Amino acid sequence: MQVSSVVSNSSACPLLPLPVEFVRTAGQLPVTTTFSVAVMGHDDARLQGALVRALRRWEERTGMVFARPRTGVGGKATLVVDCTGPGHAWPTVGEDESYALDVTPERATLRAATVPGAMHGLETLLQLLRADAEGWHLPAVTINDQPRFPWRGLMLDVCRHWVPLETIKRQLDGMAVVKLNVLHLHLTDDQGFRIESRTHPRLHECGSDGLFYTQDQMRELIAYAAARGIRVVPEIDVPGHATSWLVGYPELASQPGPYAIERRWGICDPTLDPTNEKVYTLIDAFFGEMAALFPDAYLHIGGDEVNGKQWNANPRLQEFIAAHGLKNNAGLQAYFNRRVQQLVAKHGKKMLGWDEILHPDLPREICVQSWRGVDSMATAVRLGCTALLSCGYYLDHLQPASWYYANDPLPEKSTLTPEEARRVLGGEACMWSEWATDETLDSRIWPRAAAIAERFWSPRSVTDPDDMYRRLAKASRRLEEVGLRHVKNPAAMLRRFAGEALLPPAFARLSAFLELVEAGGIYEREQHTRTNTQSTPLTGLIDCAPAESDIARKFAAAVRAWLFSERDPAAPATLELCAQLEAWRELAQDVADGLGANFGRLREAAPAAQAMAYACTVGLEAVQALASRQPLADDWVNARLAHLSTPAQAHAGLRLPVAVPVGMLVAAAKSARR
Amino acid sequence: MQVSSVVSNSSACPLLPLPVEFVRTAGQLPVTTTFSVAVMGHDDARLQGALVRALRRWEERTGMVFARPRTGVGGKATLVVDCTGPGHAWPTVGEDESYALDVTPERATLRAATVPGAMHGLETLLQLLRADAEGWHLPAVTINDQPRFPWRGLMLDVCRHWVPLETIKRQLDGMAVVKLNVLHLHLTDDQGFRIESRTHPRLHECGSDGLFYTQDQMRELIAYAAARGIRVVPEIDVPGHATSWLVGYPELASQPGPYAIERRWGICDPTLDPTNEKVYTLIDAFFGEMAALFPDAYLHIGGDEVNGKQWNANPRLQEFIAAHGLKNNAGLQAYFNRRVQQLVAKHGKKMLGWDEILHPDLPREICVQSWRGVDSMATAVRLGCTALLSCGYYLDHLQPASWYYANDPLPEKSTLTPEEARRVLGGEACMWSEWATDETLDSRIWPRAAAIAERFWSPRSVTDPDDMYRRLAKASRRLEEVGLRHVKNPAAMLRRFAGEALLPPAFARLSAFLELVEAGGIYEREQHTRTNTQSTPLTGLIDCAPAESDIARKFAAAVRAWLFSERDPAAPATLELCAQLEAWRELAQDVADGLGANFGRLREAAPAAQAMAYACTVGLEAVQALASRQPLADDWVNARLAHLSTPAQAHAGLRLPVAVPVGMLVAAAKSARR
Repeated sequence: MQVSSVVSNSSACPLLPLPVEFVRTAGQLPVTTTFSVAVMGHDDARLQGALVRALRRWEERTGMVFARPRTGVGGKATLVVDCTGPGHAWPTVGEDESYALDVTPERATLRAATVPGAMHGLETLLQLLRADAEGWHLPAVTINDQPRFPWRGLMLDVCRHWVPLETIKRQLDGMAVVKLNVLHLHLTDDQGFRIESRTHPRLHECGSDGLFYTQDQMRELIAYAAARGIRVVPEIDVPGHATSWLVGYPELASQPGPYAIERRWGICDPTLDPTNEKVYTLIDAFFGEMAALFPDAYLHIGGDEVNGKQWNANPRLQEFIAAHGLKNNAGLQAYFNRRVQQLVAKHGKKMLGWDEILHPDLPREICVQSWRGVDSMATAVRLGCTALLSCGYYLDHLQPASWYYANDPLPEKSTLTPEEARRVLGGEACMWSEWATDETLDSRIWPRAAAIAERFWSPRSVTDPDDMYRRLAKASRRLEEVGLRHVKNPAAMLRRFAGEALLPPAFARLSAFLELVEAGGIYEREQHTRTNTQSTPLTGLIDCAPAESDIARKFAAAVRAWLFSERDPAAPATLELCAQLEAWRELAQDVADGLGANFGRLREAAPAAQAMAYACTVGLEAVQALASRQPLADDWVNARLAHLSTPAQAHAGLRLPVAVPVGMLVAAAKSARR
Repeated sequence: MQVSSVVSNSSACPLLPLPVEFVRTAGQLPVTTTFSVAVMGHDDARLQGALVRALRRWEERTGMVFARPRTGVGGKATLVVDCTGPGHAWPTVGEDESYALDVTPERATLRAATVPGAMHGLETLLQLLRADAEGWHLPAVTINDQPRFPWRGLMLDVCRHWVPLETIKRQLDGMAVVKLNVLHLHLTDDQGFRIESRTHPRLHECGSDGLFYTQDQMRELIAYAAARGIRVVPEIDVPGHATSWLVGYPELASQPGPYAIERRWGICDPTLDPTNEKVYTLIDAFFGEMAALFPDAYLHIGGDEVNGKQWNANPRLQEFIAAHGLKNNAGLQAYFNRRVQQLVAKHGKKMLGWDEILHPDLPREICVQSWRGVDSMATAVRLGCTALLSCGYYLDHLQPASWYYANDPLPEKSTLTPEEARRVLGGEACMWSEWATDETLDSRIWPRAAAIAERFWSPRSVTDPDDMYRRLAKASRRLEEVGLRHVKNPAAMLRRFAGEALLPPAFARLSAFLELVEAGGIYEREQHTRTNTQSTPLTGLIDCAPAESDIARKFAAAVRAWLFSERDPAAPATLELCAQLEAWRELAQDVADGLGANFGRLREAAPAAQAMAYACTVGLEAVQALASRQPLADDWVNARLAHLSTPAQAHAGLRLPVAVPVGMLVAAAKSARR
């Protein structure tokens, strides 16, 4: 599994994730209206579906119409697809996903052991297609590729905010583009019970506000995912995060009801009663339904964040703990998990859960998904369990792509033995939905999740963030091509946010300003937004703002480079830096004035623009001081550094990433003095 | 019905459609977090649903969270909704849709006879909500409003290109915004049979490529429409446009099969056999299903464009015509229609069809939808039938909003008697989908359909196109608010079209250039696009281009105003005109150079940009000649007028609306000489 990447001419490689082996050879294969596809090896409906979808994307890009794929007549085809076998009927952990692609000026040949492997190869082909003045073509290449980890997931919380079926489908389309292969659906939580139960319909009827997936819809989704080589793993979170269960079944709680669907965020008290046999009866029946509905081998039981308050307050439960020698609440949860694990096993599934399920009493066949860190993951695999890493991959925290990219489930310095390391199956990017709606979800997942996808697929040696960003920009276009809305929805939201208050030039300035800022993450958000409930409208400037500013990132790189340069006052780099800061200062000041004179929602964002103008002024002063070798006074520096670090919550939840390199300039101007 | 509009301070009126009576009174009603709604009269689930949807839009606009509506406690509520009764269980032609709205600085009161009327009033309230530096408020107004026509429809062709259910739902949301009340679904045609038949499943199984609505999905759609006060009228087109029927049932055709789904556009030969009793047996059963599925009183049987070729070529049919004294093919179709009308009546429905169903032999209770013109509509109502106008409302022809707006189902000069005029029920905007996909549909319907909606709703005296355009710009934002994609999808498509070939500044120029052009209509398109089938990718520049250029329209108005002015060479208007033309010339030349040096699909659009640069040059010359009173030579003028009228098909299907006012300038420069 530990293959290192062999990429020659990597600057020419447009692929994300980067393949194991990529060699650019001489020439190119023209793609004209005579382009044709032949299936030479195994053929089936799934492969045909993938070929037709891929061809449709070729057609929509090029404007040409191509013949449909033919089977068994490869003689003159431009693309020959040679698949050894179908792969598993449902995508399965660890199945062969490798493919080999050979493009010569005469033809392209795609070989794979399975249909999922062939689909990865088709996606790679779509990423290679390009145009120049002579027309469309594929560059001649030799590619050999296979994933580093078998489990490359995206977890989607559909409870805090409802996510319509169509929205999940487009996430699946995006996952296929970047070769992710597991959709983990967090289906139940305090704020919603999102899957139909036929044995206990009061679960979804009382617990969902009518916003749930029917079993028929879920079957449709699972088939849609499987057609793209993606597994669907359901999470049914027990015994905590269970308020929505208790609306219809209050008798299962550890304290008397009644219960209502929780509208706020956080760790809630309502918890299932591990001493109540009815709890196991219901779980048995409901897990039986889920086991029949989801073909995947794994069933995720959550198990996170049980605060124990209801258990502490119930003498009967504390007596049970004492009577059964369970020591404490952790022991009670382990008892519960053992019972649940037996039910999961009875229905033929493997149990998966968050860190907290790990307990010496539990059998070793469980899989632990670590949100707490690599150490807790290491503990699990050392105990003999399999494990997934999610710590470092929380998309809703709105970290930059490079931050996620730097986290490795098996970093080079890992002290795990090879056998232990093999039990690390991979990882999952997590998208919790407290602060994302159907409208903003795409921009909170993409394109950053693509960087995580590369981490899970490409060899460990692939770590250059600059090269990742170069390819991420291309990936973002492809994600938009398959229907994701991470670019177009924020633009539409900003139009609505500004309404008729800003005329086109002022609107264009606000739009340009927004490309320089970033939305605050979950902690800044909670402090900024006044009403933190399921009803809070997520239509503010923070919701239109990008998770990561490309422009600010490039500016930071330019500042770093300049700081290591000669810093000649007349050098082009110095002049460019100053021109950039001056232009932004003017833009930000205009925006601040325009917003400040406006109504409440717009006015709220004026301080952020004002702070941006301030940062630019300070940056200019620091650049001039550094370029002219005029040191800056300590007091001056300290006052400005303090001002630059005003938290996002004072700025309508907006982060000012430009302030970071400006702070570097200021600090440098100070240290330069010594 | 013939109420004239009483709008005082109309420049302040943001509403579209314009109400019958709108009086702006003193003061305004603040909307703060204490805003509350009380239902004082009739209450039901439909009204509650509408209130919650409206409140959610208020919340998403203002960022505030409001209390849910209360029933029967109006004392202190900010908005009191007083509804006399529920209206019909399913929306019905001619039911009372009136409402009265009274906003004072203390409170807003909405009165209506029915829930659909109240929903129109809620939509009006949403259009009134506005913000200034003091916060959100409703202006104090008195509004009395009711529709001019009871039938205000949008016809959607879901056959030529498939339209997913979600896409139809967002059209319904848009229709509710502009008070349209009928969705006419064109469900069957040569290119697809889009509705499930349980009695004859081979209809949808063989005729749809798997792209059809199940009856359950259609029931969901009908309920969604009814919740918004909108009727759903199904059209099952017979006996022509029937190729998709014959794939599964070739024995029903007038010529032997086999048949395949038609992939091209136009009038096709395959036609049901009116002499075959099996045809009536199937229609009886299938119409019975449709009558049970659709609660509306009307069933549309199409009946258009029977070319008679199959009938001419079948001696048995010609013998039947002779034996039954039917004279000719028109007589045979009338015979067929009589039989079909009896089946429609048997299933309790009224028959509706296109012009061609009109025949003296048919009973008078039919309704005729006229696509041929007001004369053919007049013939129908004079015969005693009811009628709808669709001629002049074909959205897919991509005419400007003002063009549709000028068409009136009952113009002032109409020679119909009052009784005949009452039989004109209204009209329908039509969206045929040969050249629209799920991705482009919204931009081909909206916002122009809103102008037609105003034509159907507002009094005949409301005809000022400039005021309509002022309010249409506001309506477009509201349409975007409810989820329509007429702005964001073209932007995303243009990003994909340009791909990586155009760097940001060049891309911004192409984007700005596209705002100056318009997509060619169906005739120009057919000549431009090479492969005119269901598979033709609709992802070209023509598909990204707007149906109407606001900028070009405003420029044309400025040119008209200037031509009637003193035309002083130093006047600000003259300088502005020149500056505008110079800026566009530079932009267009840059775009032409950038595209010309690029690959095929982009290069194709270079001539359009070149022609635009040419038009600007000519316009500048004409302005200078007119301003300096220097006449232009006939030869010069004629050569330029000829060049300016190069058809859109030579320009990648793009129209150059700026060339029209430039042509006016050139012509004026010529006539000024005489």
